[in-house]
Amino acid sequence: MQKRELLYEGKAKRLYLTDNKDLVISEFKDDLTAFNGEKKSSEVGKGALNNKISTELFKLLEENGIQTHFVEMLDDNHMLHKKVDVILIEVIVRNIATGSLTRNLGIEDGTLLPFTLVEFDYKNDDLGDPKLNDQHALILGLVEYQDELDKLRRMARQVNDILRPYFFEKGLNLVDFKLEFGKDSSGNIILVDEISPDNCRFWDVESGEKMDKDRFRQGLGGLAVAYEQVLNRILSK
Amino acid sequence: MQKRELLYEGKAKRLYLTDNKDLVISEFKDDLTAFNGEKKSSEVGKGALNNKISTELFKLLEENGIQTHFVEMLDDNHMLHKKVDVILIEVIVRNIATGSLTRNLGIEDGTLLPFTLVEFDYKNDDLGDPKLNDQHALILGLVEYQDELDKLRRMARQVNDILRPYFFEKGLNLVDFKLEFGKDSSGNIILVDEISPDNCRFWDVESGEKMDKDRFRQGLGGLAVAYEQVLNRILSK
Repeated sequence: MQKRELLYEGKAKRLYLTDNKDLVISEFKDDLTAFNGEKKSSEVGKGALNNKISTELFKLLEENGIQTHFVEMLDDNHMLHKKVDVILIEVIVRNIATGSLTRNLGIEDGTLLPFTLVEFDYKNDDLGDPKLNDQHALILGLVEYQDELDKLRRMARQVNDILRPYFFEKGLNLVDFKLEFGKDSSGNIILVDEISPDNCRFWDVESGEKMDKDRFRQGLGGLAVAYEQVLNRILSK
Repeated sequence: MQKRELLYEGKAKRLYLTDNKDLVISEFKDDLTAFNGEKKSSEVGKGALNNKISTELFKLLEENGIQTHFVEMLDDNHMLHKKVDVILIEVIVRNIATGSLTRNLGIEDGTLLPFTLVEFDYKNDDLGDPKLNDQHALILGLVEYQDELDKLRRMARQVNDILRPYFFEKGLNLVDFKLEFGKDSSGNIILVDEISPDNCRFWDVESGEKMDKDRFRQGLGGLAVAYEQVLNRILSK
């Protein structure tokens, strides 16, 4: 499958059309951004690591009954996947409080939450991705029906129920992560985007070391090394 | 009923104990604050107007089956009411988009919403009253059960269903308002605080003129005149 016209360039990926109208190719970039694009950098190899990690995790999720946009990894930086209408809601799943949850609600960093929290953010850079309740999402027309919001929440919890024990067995606490969803050509809601240390937080179970984009956000260095560690733990049986 | 010790001083009211452990007295102050206390002023007569407006509206709501903390107006600035454990959730009801909804979600000012929106804010000045979803409220322990959140939402909609047509008949659009709730000594959730132009937005149906605290927030002047207009329209049969 060949790349055709560039359809869209995002912060971390470029999206290309293909000769099949239902399929597109994502090119994973080495660019890093944080704080709504205010902090920028780039790290050689980051795109390929995220492509490989996402590929493994999409396969794992598909095996466990989650429908995703994944078709196949084409090469180090390219993934072939279904074309969807993206739902403009970022679905945040949190097991341990950190980051914006800590700042916004005053919950102490590192607190194990009494149950897994699912949040909706409006995917809108100009507005700074504000928090939504269900009624906001409906009023903004981000989905048509309450049922769809319930499905997003249900799928997000299922993904967590698969990934959290999977990573724990590999010595990583899945602290929180962001999912995106879209509707395929039949109108099914499926998981899209990527699942990587760019949008998941992983803390080493033993040392507590951060193995994700917080290394960049917090200027800790060693980002590619940490992402490679995550990939290696995924690949180790 | 006499005022005893000062129990608490808020931005707009002082709360006093009485000789009856289940009853307290609120003294309505003339102080005005906005933007989480950053803008401050005072307007003679404002406290008395809010006390009188709240008294009339609590009576109206009680007649229509809403349980409130209201017992009686004692004099111009004092209201006797039940003592409650306040639930630290501000329940915002919106019929027309304005203020923070417009800023946060990019909905055009003055848009009639397709349905009445109910939002929960965490009543916490230090954190700037952040938006909550239901799961946040449970994790923070602001209520114990999901049922209680559903009850807050249901009561807030009932209050809107009573007040919105009531004010429309008096030539005022009820744009949005903030409610607070508490648990009385039997554990019932009841409506508390005040219902006044300090926490409701009223727009004149004909002229669109703002008849509420936005006159202070936006430096329009004529605040007491507007509040008195609201009271007079309530008192006119």
